[in-house]
Amino acid sequence: MNMQHIVALLEQYKAGQAGLDDVLKELKKLPYEDLDFAKVDHHRALRNGFPEVIFCQGKTVEQVVKIFHSLAEKNRNILATRAGQEIFEAVQAQYPEAKYNVPGRVVSLTREHCKNSSRRVLVLTAGTADIPVAEEAAVCSEVMGHEVARIYDVGVAGIHRLFAYYDKFETAAVLIVVAGMEGALASVVGGLVDVPVVAVPTSVGYGANFNGLSALLSMLNSCAKGVGVVNIDNGFGAAALADVIIRSGLKHV
Amino acid sequence: MNMQHIVALLEQYKAGQAGLDDVLKELKKLPYEDLDFAKVDHHRALRNGFPEVIFCQGKTVEQVVKIFHSLAEKNRNILATRAGQEIFEAVQAQYPEAKYNVPGRVVSLTREHCKNSSRRVLVLTAGTADIPVAEEAAVCSEVMGHEVARIYDVGVAGIHRLFAYYDKFETAAVLIVVAGMEGALASVVGGLVDVPVVAVPTSVGYGANFNGLSALLSMLNSCAKGVGVVNIDNGFGAAALADVIIRSGLKHV
Amino acid sequence: MNMQHIVALLEQYKAGQAGLDDVLKELKKLPYEDLDFAKVDHHRALRNGFPEVIFCQGKTVEQVVKIFHSLAEKNRNILATRAGQEIFEAVQAQYPEAKYNVPGRVVSLTREHCKNSSRRVLVLTAGTADIPVAEEAAVCSEVMGHEVARIYDVGVAGIHRLFAYYDKFETAAVLIVVAGMEGALASVVGGLVDVPVVAVPTSVGYGANFNGLSALLSMLNSCAKGVGVVNIDNGFGAAALADVIIRSGLKHV
Amino acid sequence: MNMQHIVALLEQYKAGQAGLDDVLKELKKLPYEDLDFAKVDHHRALRNGFPEVIFCQGKTVEQVVKIFHSLAEKNRNILATRAGQEIFEAVQAQYPEAKYNVPGRVVSLTREHCKNSSRRVLVLTAGTADIPVAEEAAVCSEVMGHEVARIYDVGVAGIHRLFAYYDKFETAAVLIVVAGMEGALASVVGGLVDVPVVAVPTSVGYGANFNGLSALLSMLNSCAKGVGVVNIDNGFGAAALADVIIRSGLKHV
Amino acid sequence: MNMQHIVALLEQYKAGQAGLDDVLKELKKLPYEDLDFAKVDHHRALRNGFPEVIFCQGKTVEQVVKIFHSLAEKNRNILATRAGQEIFEAVQAQYPEAKYNVPGRVVSLTREHCKNSSRRVLVLTAGTADIPVAEEAAVCSEVMGHEVARIYDVGVAGIHRLFAYYDKFETAAVLIVVAGMEGALASVVGGLVDVPVVAVPTSVGYGANFNGLSALLSMLNSCAKGVGVVNIDNGFGAAALADVIIRSGLKHV
Amino acid sequence: MNMQHIVALLEQYKAGQAGLDDVLKELKKLPYEDLDFAKVDHHRALRNGFPEVIFCQGKTVEQVVKIFHSLAEKNRNILATRAGQEIFEAVQAQYPEAKYNVPGRVVSLTREHCKNSSRRVLVLTAGTADIPVAEEAAVCSEVMGHEVARIYDVGVAGIHRLFAYYDKFETAAVLIVVAGMEGALASVVGGLVDVPVVAVPTSVGYGANFNGLSALLSMLNSCAKGVGVVNIDNGFGAAALADVIIRSGLKHV
Amino acid sequence: MNMQHIVALLEQYKAGQAGLDDVLKELKKLPYEDLDFAKVDHHRALRNGFPEVIFCQGKTVEQVVKIFHSLAEKNRNILATRAGQEIFEAVQAQYPEAKYNVPGRVVSLTREHCKNSSRRVLVLTAGTADIPVAEEAAVCSEVMGHEVARIYDVGVAGIHRLFAYYDKFETAAVLIVVAGMEGALASVVGGLVDVPVVAVPTSVGYGANFNGLSALLSMLNSCAKGVGVVNIDNGFGAAALADVIIRSGLKHV
Amino acid sequence: MNMQHIVALLEQYKAGQAGLDDVLKELKKLPYEDLDFAKVDHHRALRNGFPEVIFCQGKTVEQVVKIFHSLAEKNRNILATRAGQEIFEAVQAQYPEAKYNVPGRVVSLTREHCKNSSRRVLVLTAGTADIPVAEEAAVCSEVMGHEVARIYDVGVAGIHRLFAYYDKFETAAVLIVVAGMEGALASVVGGLVDVPVVAVPTSVGYGANFNGLSALLSMLNSCAKGVGVVNIDNGFGAAALADVIIRSGLKHV
Repeated sequence: MNMQHIVALLEQYKAGQAGLDDVLKELKKLPYEDLDFAKVDHHRALRNGFPEVIFCQGKTVEQVVKIFHSLAEKNRNILATRAGQEIFEAVQAQYPEAKYNVPGRVVSLTREHCKNSSRRVLVLTAGTADIPVAEEAAVCSEVMGHEVARIYDVGVAGIHRLFAYYDKFETAAVLIVVAGMEGALASVVGGLVDVPVVAVPTSVGYGANFNGLSALLSMLNSCAKGVGVVNIDNGFGAAALADVIIRSGLKHV
Repeated sequence: MNMQHIVALLEQYKAGQAGLDDVLKELKKLPYEDLDFAKVDHHRALRNGFPEVIFCQGKTVEQVVKIFHSLAEKNRNILATRAGQEIFEAVQAQYPEAKYNVPGRVVSLTREHCKNSSRRVLVLTAGTADIPVAEEAAVCSEVMGHEVARIYDVGVAGIHRLFAYYDKFETAAVLIVVAGMEGALASVVGGLVDVPVVAVPTSVGYGANFNGLSALLSMLNSCAKGVGVVNIDNGFGAAALADVIIRSGLKHV
Repeated sequence: MNMQHIVALLEQYKAGQAGLDDVLKELKKLPYEDLDFAKVDHHRALRNGFPEVIFCQGKTVEQVVKIFHSLAEKNRNILATRAGQEIFEAVQAQYPEAKYNVPGRVVSLTREHCKNSSRRVLVLTAGTADIPVAEEAAVCSEVMGHEVARIYDVGVAGIHRLFAYYDKFETAAVLIVVAGMEGALASVVGGLVDVPVVAVPTSVGYGANFNGLSALLSMLNSCAKGVGVVNIDNGFGAAALADVIIRSGLKHV
Repeated sequence: MNMQHIVALLEQYKAGQAGLDDVLKELKKLPYEDLDFAKVDHHRALRNGFPEVIFCQGKTVEQVVKIFHSLAEKNRNILATRAGQEIFEAVQAQYPEAKYNVPGRVVSLTREHCKNSSRRVLVLTAGTADIPVAEEAAVCSEVMGHEVARIYDVGVAGIHRLFAYYDKFETAAVLIVVAGMEGALASVVGGLVDVPVVAVPTSVGYGANFNGLSALLSMLNSCAKGVGVVNIDNGFGAAALADVIIRSGLKHV
Repeated sequence: MNMQHIVALLEQYKAGQAGLDDVLKELKKLPYEDLDFAKVDHHRALRNGFPEVIFCQGKTVEQVVKIFHSLAEKNRNILATRAGQEIFEAVQAQYPEAKYNVPGRVVSLTREHCKNSSRRVLVLTAGTADIPVAEEAAVCSEVMGHEVARIYDVGVAGIHRLFAYYDKFETAAVLIVVAGMEGALASVVGGLVDVPVVAVPTSVGYGANFNGLSALLSMLNSCAKGVGVVNIDNGFGAAALADVIIRSGLKHV
Repeated sequence: MNMQHIVALLEQYKAGQAGLDDVLKELKKLPYEDLDFAKVDHHRALRNGFPEVIFCQGKTVEQVVKIFHSLAEKNRNILATRAGQEIFEAVQAQYPEAKYNVPGRVVSLTREHCKNSSRRVLVLTAGTADIPVAEEAAVCSEVMGHEVARIYDVGVAGIHRLFAYYDKFETAAVLIVVAGMEGALASVVGGLVDVPVVAVPTSVGYGANFNGLSALLSMLNSCAKGVGVVNIDNGFGAAALADVIIRSGLKHV
Repeated sequence: MNMQHIVALLEQYKAGQAGLDDVLKELKKLPYEDLDFAKVDHHRALRNGFPEVIFCQGKTVEQVVKIFHSLAEKNRNILATRAGQEIFEAVQAQYPEAKYNVPGRVVSLTREHCKNSSRRVLVLTAGTADIPVAEEAAVCSEVMGHEVARIYDVGVAGIHRLFAYYDKFETAAVLIVVAGMEGALASVVGGLVDVPVVAVPTSVGYGANFNGLSALLSMLNSCAKGVGVVNIDNGFGAAALADVIIRSGLKHV
Repeated sequence: MNMQHIVALLEQYKAGQAGLDDVLKELKKLPYEDLDFAKVDHHRALRNGFPEVIFCQGKTVEQVVKIFHSLAEKNRNILATRAGQEIFEAVQAQYPEAKYNVPGRVVSLTREHCKNSSRRVLVLTAGTADIPVAEEAAVCSEVMGHEVARIYDVGVAGIHRLFAYYDKFETAAVLIVVAGMEGALASVVGGLVDVPVVAVPTSVGYGANFNGLSALLSMLNSCAKGVGVVNIDNGFGAAALADVIIRSGLKHV
């Protein structure tokens, strides 16, 4: 499926360095490890720039620990999102250097501090209640090797609070805007900057926010340009999109 | 149902000036005219400050003309909303002084220019495509006796356009904010002013705006305070709410 | 962003009373206090007539207490909504005069009883189960300096109960109508009065009320005029809209 | 499936008056006529008290005429709903005594005026635009043999218009309440009467009525008791429910 | 609002037996009792044939007990629905003869067994999990004075189970069909009988039943005639509709 | 992607019968033809048993004709669905033997009558208005080589019409049940048979059918087992599922 | 309703071997057992190939045990789905050989291992969190007599993991694809195979998956052919559809 | 609002080169032109890298031409999207060098071919019917100065068609994936590449695609990382996001 890899295999095969069965077997076995309940995608670090991230929701503590272990054997840095306290403790028992971001519910293992660039990911929230989602985005961005700045609680109802940080916008490579309720912050910010805005609707609010639908629709219908939307409360997804935007910008210069 | 009216009727009845049957008959007959397909509520001008407004959608031209006629006999100023060109022509044939606001699709008859106050209704739109709804609101406000100022196309993606009009906000008694797409204008404006904001979501946009749902939910979830929402595309409803806010403010001083 | 403020700053700057850096620094620092997780908007009392209100949902007890403290240093009266018992206790430990409205879940500190006008906010509910939302609206209105009257459980299925209070409608500057289920009370009341009606849909009911959607749509589609809708269960939002309606009516006479 | 019919067939079979094949054949053939594209249910007049009614939407003119013919051979009175002008003309060419209710879009053939009772179906609408649905209900009720009274445009925003007709409510066996927008009329009427209310939401309105959803949810969530809801714009369905309520009341005394 | 009552009051007033103030005062006071948090509608027994029923959801135990007491002073039979065990116990402490239907969660007090007619309400469910809603309907019907028959778990996937009870259908005045999932039972039953079918969608099922939406839409779109729908899980509403259908059938013969 | 194909290519490559570039080029070129605006999937006949079917909606007449031509060069039998009259005429100009099913809007070219088995696809509809969708399913099934029987207008409101055809159910390999409104036919049929039921919800109906949502949810929530649902109005999808069910049953014996 | 059964009864009746009452009584009594709260459908094993399966959700432990007992008396193998631990324990107390699949929450009793064919049901999941639904499908398929293979966590984001199992696809009679989030796995798999794909959307994911709606809509709109969709999280439904597909394929050869 | 601009103005003001009134006047006048019905944002080219783009939907031909003219006076390259043929003709009358992309409905004026980079925007569609949206994206990207490659009709049901283009993925800076129906293409592509994927759901499909909702939810719930979603059918929005991603990558190196 990876053409270059197929080319390499074919070359070896033609050169007699590999049999047909071996080629097929290799094709199947190489890029992941089969834990039965999970196929750990070790190929992802090469393909997507960062190892597979463990989404803990819906997995047992045992399953998470096994996947964590499988990843930690082949990678330096590991992320587990939507992780409860009990997951952190189970991971920490084996990897004492693992850390836990409480509001963001992220377990991270950073054995090699990489620095992807001198540029920053700027994470904004409209309100205080959006902070957990923002922290998920921020800590993931950090582990992925980006410098992160946080500006929290600058929603549009007191728009002067936002403008006070206007000069910080200039220093960012990507802005991650985290907002619930009417999600208007993404539009206002999107109109002010000339870098990509990753918009994260949150389920913060009540009544007719319908668990984040209001902010989601707002952001999708933004009259500002340069705004890409991710799933409701998906801090990790925002970090991943910011990551690929920055890395691809560097790679192709 | 109107207690004062019941009191008056009872007094006449006790004084022998009215029989029981007359009282009951009067109770039933007085406040409206029965056109069979419509009960024209002549009582509304007293009760709600302005005569019943004809909502033309779903009515035949004939029906509208008859109701218009019924109202015009007892009132000086008449409004018909959601009126097509053919309705205007039919009305104009009988009332040559009637006027037609083309984008707003409002037929109006103003035989007596009242002036409710020295204060203004300020109508803002986020975009050019919101103008028809805004015009419905503006022309209805004018016929109801209010001075109206219009500021169109000041959506939040170019927020400096909005701030350029900031000093006008100070002069308004009520702001009517008309916006489709993500409807963020209501929140930004709501955070800047100290007068009531009537928010009108419009069906302008496409895709995930779902015919105005995105702007509606945005406005309902506004993080700014002092925002009252009316139905999607309901310019008349906004004017009516602005009208009662201003008049009630005057009345009770 | 506040034009008058910009003018004043410019004057000082021109007069040599302030340097450029000072101006910019002032522009950024003045109107709020940065608690890191929150930017407390001290400017709001000037701009919107009442200090920022703390929406406790999604905030930790610690965060609420810190914001409360920040606000209490610069304002006489403070409101915290959606506050659980534990938040009240933490606030009360520092501010013994703080009060707690149990059904409305509002913590309030009233160190200066202001009286905004001789006019009243009238809060109606359709049923008994709507009382918590109504109490949130009522207590917020009271702390904002308005006299409040409550009429609870006057839904339209027994419409004579409503008419019995008709004379009270006359005394109100604004009516707040709180109703779940089919929310018809807003339309009936809206047809009877000549003052603004703030309609608050509630999530009361079951089955196809879909957490307040039925009452919300009812109120948005009200055939009565002069009705402004706020978010589902948003008692505070209703109080804030009523507040600005009354104050703006007084201010501009 | 009709137990009594099965019993009769079994008796004949046992008595030698019918063979087994005949019994099965009869079971299959008797109660309907196969027009290939339609199975005309001639059994319905016996089972449900009125012959099958032709729902024209989605059928070609030819198909409607054939079904009409099939029904007219075995029944005296026929109804075809949602019928366009061209369907009426095609039917009238063969049945000159057929009639067409223009707003209700109902073709009817009444060759035998039956009178089911001395009691009345009372059809109310909230507005003028609801009349087409109401007429569908009214004309169907008439052809089904019920006396019908119509009271149109008595929505709750001018509730005195409704009360003026209160004494008529007493004379009705069933009330059919037809309302769009917020559909509050059903609740108010339901609270006033002691007979069944058949509630018909209509798609009348705009914006957040979402094609009748607002009125539908209102009526389903009615706080009044004794209200049964039918589909949006389903005038025929309301007539059919009213019909069976009245007939079953007579039958079982 | 009750015309006959107004007539009587006017007569007394004219005859000098009542002063004007007395008349107005009486108008307001008579038909309900004000418990502050509730206006108990004592007029309902006259107007709607059965005293107000207490919907316990959203009310405190104390509130329910007070309303129960208020009703029990003026009525013989009382119903409280959606009542938890703790409500029953509090009621029973004062009214030892009160009974509790566990699956239906109904508290009832029957001090006078009335018998409205010799006809029956037949309650069917599609499945076993629909029984709680069905029991709410059944026990309410019983307390309202109707004989009730129950046939549970006869969903259409095993349609022979339904036909086995076909002869019972003949004996019923009204059928209450309680079904979740796809709610097809209402259509099948509606096609078989010639009496009104009250359809109660339930939230039974999972996934794309969306808390009863699937059954609700099914029942509203029923191709059978004579079906009136009530709210999701609203067993009481079904009983109330059945009650008024039967009583109105008797009353007007 | 097709492992066997990859194996064969590798064998040729190793044997020197193909160069590496040729292999990669072949991999890319073989299975489809690039028409620029469309990649015609000639591989599908091998992989999925029938050539790619042209879904005409959203394509210009020119595009359809070109794709038709591309397919007709490599296949004997061609299907184009959702085809308007003008598409048929353009195809027929080049392929005079092409046929057009008017209600089903299917253009077909059958140059080789295959017979997949002696078993039948049985297509049922609940009503006459469902016939267009049913015809799409039926004609597609026929061109795919299956015998088809049609039973139309056997909805559950007259369930005896359905039972009259019960013996035909026994002869079918697959039943395709096409129904709008409440879609109950799928559940009733699913409870009666022991073969797979392919359920096709249609957008037939009005009001709260919400363009087929009611039938869709009904079928997904069917209490009968052995029911697989396809998209609303998707007659072709039903035929394709029936086709693969029958062919896979034959293939693997 | 079962024609062959009716024929047999009629023969006996004619031959004097059964009286009329007996026939009717038998018709009603034979095919199910009446547990009052449930009508256990013993006829289903004959009609649908497997005894009725107990859906435990919404049933009490007692009810489940009684139904289990009723079924176990007439059948060898029993299934109870959505069963909590406490249900398993109550069943096991009486049937010690009963087994419990923990993630799938299925209680099963297999007293006779049947083997329906040499063909396999292949169960795939997109992620680890989809396993509980997949296990429900897998264990039900096994008890129904099918060989089952499981491939878990092969979602399309790492599509090479899927292709590694491509050769297993060839061996399956039916594929059950279990996926949450965007549910794309069904489309990709459906494009690769020539056997029926049963698609099971799951509620796995967060935010805008809206409890499985995203995967459900994806699967219904699949651009691949040969895909039949069942309800969200309905593992049992998938097994039942797979079962009838395989058995009907065998039966009719 | 632009801090640097404010700084410059302040400097001039302090230096006596500008009066206070001039400063405020300039602040308001500079960045846009007031056409009354539109405020043309000339500042956007500086702020957002490309002049304001005219969204024609909901604007009259006259309005579009005036805005076009206003923009063309200050910018070299102009874009008007959602433009009908009549708009193009009106523009072309004044600007003969204007061009019209028919499927994409984009009017463009390119007086200066800029080349932003050597990198490409790659636009993919799942089907042929998605081409109009893709062309909107492609032509906008071209006018914004990017090289564009198009690969159309490579949906996942024939996934080999997609892999045939795998090597092209490597050359792209950003991929724009345009897909309707189940929108799975975004997830599959997102799993294969290491550059940002801009996902554009389209309203292509029928039935339960609900005007693009299915593809929208799919893309938001994508299990692949690095995917940013824009509004349904929003080809321009995708181009704008791709543009800012590429430009910001260049700018900050």
